[in-house]
Amino acid sequence: MPASPIRKLVPYADQAKKKGIKVYHLNIGQPDIKTPEVVFEAIKNIDLNLIAYSPSQGYENYRKKLAGYYQKNNIDITADDILVTTGGSEALSIAIGSIADPGDEIIIPEPFYANYNGFAKQNAVNVVPIHSSIDDNFALPPIAEFEKLITPKTKAILYSNPGNPTGYVYTKEEISALRDLALKYDIYIIADEVYREFIYGDTTHHSILHEQGMENHAIIIDSVSKRYSMCGARIGTMITKNKTLMQTAMKFAQTRLSPPTLGQIASEAAIDTPQSYFDEVIGEYKERRDTLVRKLKEIPGVKVAEPKGAFYIIAELPVDNTDKFAQWLLENFSDNKETVMVAPASGFYSTQGQGTREIRMAYVLKKEDLIRSAEILKKAITLYNNQSY
Amino acid sequence: MPASPIRKLVPYADQAKKKGIKVYHLNIGQPDIKTPEVVFEAIKNIDLNLIAYSPSQGYENYRKKLAGYYQKNNIDITADDILVTTGGSEALSIAIGSIADPGDEIIIPEPFYANYNGFAKQNAVNVVPIHSSIDDNFALPPIAEFEKLITPKTKAILYSNPGNPTGYVYTKEEISALRDLALKYDIYIIADEVYREFIYGDTTHHSILHEQGMENHAIIIDSVSKRYSMCGARIGTMITKNKTLMQTAMKFAQTRLSPPTLGQIASEAAIDTPQSYFDEVIGEYKERRDTLVRKLKEIPGVKVAEPKGAFYIIAELPVDNTDKFAQWLLENFSDNKETVMVAPASGFYSTQGQGTREIRMAYVLKKEDLIRSAEILKKAITLYNNQSY
Repeated sequence: MPASPIRKLVPYADQAKKKGIKVYHLNIGQPDIKTPEVVFEAIKNIDLNLIAYSPSQGYENYRKKLAGYYQKNNIDITADDILVTTGGSEALSIAIGSIADPGDEIIIPEPFYANYNGFAKQNAVNVVPIHSSIDDNFALPPIAEFEKLITPKTKAILYSNPGNPTGYVYTKEEISALRDLALKYDIYIIADEVYREFIYGDTTHHSILHEQGMENHAIIIDSVSKRYSMCGARIGTMITKNKTLMQTAMKFAQTRLSPPTLGQIASEAAIDTPQSYFDEVIGEYKERRDTLVRKLKEIPGVKVAEPKGAFYIIAELPVDNTDKFAQWLLENFSDNKETVMVAPASGFYSTQGQGTREIRMAYVLKKEDLIRSAEILKKAITLYNNQSY
Repeated sequence: MPASPIRKLVPYADQAKKKGIKVYHLNIGQPDIKTPEVVFEAIKNIDLNLIAYSPSQGYENYRKKLAGYYQKNNIDITADDILVTTGGSEALSIAIGSIADPGDEIIIPEPFYANYNGFAKQNAVNVVPIHSSIDDNFALPPIAEFEKLITPKTKAILYSNPGNPTGYVYTKEEISALRDLALKYDIYIIADEVYREFIYGDTTHHSILHEQGMENHAIIIDSVSKRYSMCGARIGTMITKNKTLMQTAMKFAQTRLSPPTLGQIASEAAIDTPQSYFDEVIGEYKERRDTLVRKLKEIPGVKVAEPKGAFYIIAELPVDNTDKFAQWLLENFSDNKETVMVAPASGFYSTQGQGTREIRMAYVLKKEDLIRSAEILKKAITLYNNQSY
């Protein structure tokens, strides 16, 4: 596996810090939001004398309570349809391993979460990218384009909704069109819905399991990481109503024995997080999004894909190459001893040469820091373009 | 992946319980020993307001403290040589994925921990078994036999020491012979040392990294699961001094983001477990082992591989087939409303037809229950052989 463009930047960020430069990290999706208090209460009141394996599928109590959460979101599943995993990461890895053999193909609209490549590669499965464009905020590509790419080796279409790195939220119509495609060609839809809660404004979330007739063709990937700001719990879920698929997934699950016990206790408690927590968090992110979008649009030559969800934004910059530029920001630039670290978007594209003028920013910093980051970016772009390389 | 012979028995155990029969579980390695008090103290005193991702390699503080534990055990490594994983399971999966391509081979003395098959299969790697025998307590097969199996596709020899399911503890001479083989053929030795602490009597543990010149050829798999009776923490380690290999392993580690944060906090605290805890635990297991071995030897026709470590024992029974017999124990037998669940050994052999008269028992129950279990087994064998099938 090649190192991602983000990871390549890490040593440059370390060097900048050694030189006493403050780096604003817009490059990663580690929220600064507090984990709900109910989670820490549950951890502090843990009543065990033995931290034992949980069942491979995850604790039944947790799965039952989790099914209640989905029911509330009009996703009609039971505890049996849930496999608790070690983060959304493992849910993806097990899902791909369960539906595809080496050499099979999965179609993914690009740009996409870079680690999808890793999970596919681990399973010797080939990613077939389909282009979505910043010019329509990364909406779903036309269904006819998908059909051109479907072969006998195609096992699934995978997307994240809301999108990382795009922030796009697929409409009911788009999801319905994917449903029709799945049923027509008998392939799976893998919907990574880990950002379900993070939607701003009037848009609502449409889950793949809101669609009728998807019992045997839908897989939801989910996680507590972003929802409750507890990425380190490493608790995710793979959801499917397809019994045969669940049986196969359980074999992978049994091989790795069990998901983390402490994380499950924390995650079960998290389901009781009061609505006020989400109202506050969503309000905070909405303000950050609005701030960052506004400030980025003020920079001449910058094009922004307006995000409706998640906490990422893709921007096209007036520079020759964002891999080079992102490195330069850390290696050669600082304004008042400060600089920014952004993710070059090339790492989110599978097609060579795509996204080379785009960056992804995660608005996981507080508003003042985002304003300052945009200011730094503006000055940096000017200086970068006035220098000769 | 086929279901293992143990998993196939689970529905029969459930049925027995529904009929009001008490089942003594000798089939699994979930210790009944308490987790050290220092672990719960650390969990209860957790001082975080955000459960964030840890670094992909694991927290540096934890790795440093862990390096100290290995130094004390004369294993000369630093924090940089350690990758913290989600259990020993993930350590194995990443190790195999990092050293082998699809179609490559790994030699494993059989009987072996059944999940090795799963980790190999996930990576499309072929397991090449080499026979070890109950008649010499499952000592290392002759080196000449290994050499017959080495091909250009051989990437490693994998063993567990102390052995699961055998309880055998390899001698310094056996490990040195494997070292010579690794250097001669330029292959890895993957030593699963998760039971390092569990050795009874005068035998001492000889680690693969006690051998000289193994910097580039040794991988240690380790875990807190059994050592501190905290299987549910899901914290393991992959250890290697081979920098290139560690770099490759880090790519797998980065794809899955991070090992569990809460488990790492618990595991870091566990390193301070007082010696008195181990003295008590090892004393308890030694007594259990001695009891079970003695009671099994009293059953006519039973052959026992005397274990020196771990908490497993393999016994050959005077029955036609232990898969059948283990199922019969749950389905058709009870003595005073009690029966036992054992693991048919066929699941620990890769070679078809091997181990069909052997079972594995985990002595993770208290002494009285082990005595009762042996008594039940004795009665069951007699009845089983007096019936016609």
